[in-house]
Amino acid sequence: MDLLKERIIRDGRVYPGNILKVDSFLNHLVDVSLLCEIGKEFYRLFGCCNITKILTIEASGIGVACIAAQYFDVPVLFAKKTQTLNIGGDVYSERVESYTHKKTYDIVISKQFLKESDRVLLIDDFLALGNALRGLVNLALKAGSEIAGAGIVIEKSFQSGGQNIRDMGIRVESLARVCGMTNDTVFFED
Amino acid sequence: MDLLKERIIRDGRVYPGNILKVDSFLNHLVDVSLLCEIGKEFYRLFGCCNITKILTIEASGIGVACIAAQYFDVPVLFAKKTQTLNIGGDVYSERVESYTHKKTYDIVISKQFLKESDRVLLIDDFLALGNALRGLVNLALKAGSEIAGAGIVIEKSFQSGGQNIRDMGIRVESLARVCGMTNDTVFFED
Repeated sequence: MDLLKERIIRDGRVYPGNILKVDSFLNHLVDVSLLCEIGKEFYRLFGCCNITKILTIEASGIGVACIAAQYFDVPVLFAKKTQTLNIGGDVYSERVESYTHKKTYDIVISKQFLKESDRVLLIDDFLALGNALRGLVNLALKAGSEIAGAGIVIEKSFQSGGQNIRDMGIRVESLARVCGMTNDTVFFED
Repeated sequence: MDLLKERIIRDGRVYPGNILKVDSFLNHLVDVSLLCEIGKEFYRLFGCCNITKILTIEASGIGVACIAAQYFDVPVLFAKKTQTLNIGGDVYSERVESYTHKKTYDIVISKQFLKESDRVLLIDDFLALGNALRGLVNLALKAGSEIAGAGIVIEKSFQSGGQNIRDMGIRVESLARVCGMTNDTVFFED
C-alpha cells in the first residue's frame, strides 16, 4: 500500500533494537484519514471472506479494527491485556510475551462473544515476532471460530512472526512489509 | 441519545459496586454501527467548535474517538497508560486512580503531539468519579491547549466526576446520563 509506505518513509523513525516508531500517525497520534484508507484496503483483501467479526488486541489495534469494521459492517472484539474486574470469569485467555514492552501478560476475551459460528478477521497494527497475533489465533481456535486471515498494518518481515503464522496455514496480509532498517532508512519488500 | 439509552436498557448489566457492564456493545465487543451514531452525535454537539484534535485514553476510548474523528476530520491522540519503551522521555504525564481496576497508573502523551495551538475535544466511554477525564484535562492544560469540551458516552451522574469537571468550567456532554441503578434496571436523567 503505497500511501502507507510513503508515510512510513516520511514520518517513521528508527530506534536502536530494530524499533520502528510510527507514533506520529499510527499508534499514539492517529491519522484517522490514513486509517480509513487502511480499512478500505483490508476490505478489498478480505471483503469476500464472509467475515462475521474482527478480533484485535488493545490498545493500538482498536482504532485500526474499528475503522476497518465499518467497511465490513461487523462488530469488533478486542482482547483485553489483563483480567479486569469488569470481565467475568468465563473467558478464554492466552499468555503473550511483548517484544516492545519486554514483559509477559495475559490477553482475555469473554467466551460469550466469540463462537464456533464466527468467521474472524484478525487485525493488528504491528507484526514482528508474532506473539500478539499468535495469541489472537489461539483465542479464536479455543472459541472454535474459523480464521479467515490476519490483516496487519506493518510487518517486520525480517523477523520470524509472519512466517510462523503463515506456516500455520493462516493467510496474513500486511500492508507494508519492512525487510530491513538502518538509522535513517526503511526498506520494503517488492 | 435514545438509541444508546435503549441499548443500555436492553444489553447493559448491573453488577455489585455500581458497576454497569456494557461489554457486549461498547468496551469489549464493540458495535461499530452504534459508534458511528455516537460519533455523529458528538459532531452535532461539538462540530462548530473548531476542534483540531481529539484526545482520549487507552483502551476503550480509542474506538469511540477514532470513529468520531472521521466526522471532525481531525487526528486522535490517545494517552498511554504506562510509559512504554516506545514513547520517548519528552512527555506530559498525569497520575490517575482507576475506579474500575482499583489501581493507580500514569497516563502519558508525547509533548510533540499536543500544542498551544490545539483546540481539543476530550472523548471517553465512561465518566464516573472522573479520574481519567481529569487526567486528560490536566494533560491538555499542561500542553497549553484550549479545551473545547468533553464528549462522554455514558456518565454515571450519581457519582461526582461530571459535576467536578463542569465546576472547572469545562463543557461536558454525556450521551446517556445514568442517575441510578438497581439489580435489573438503569435509570436515566430526563
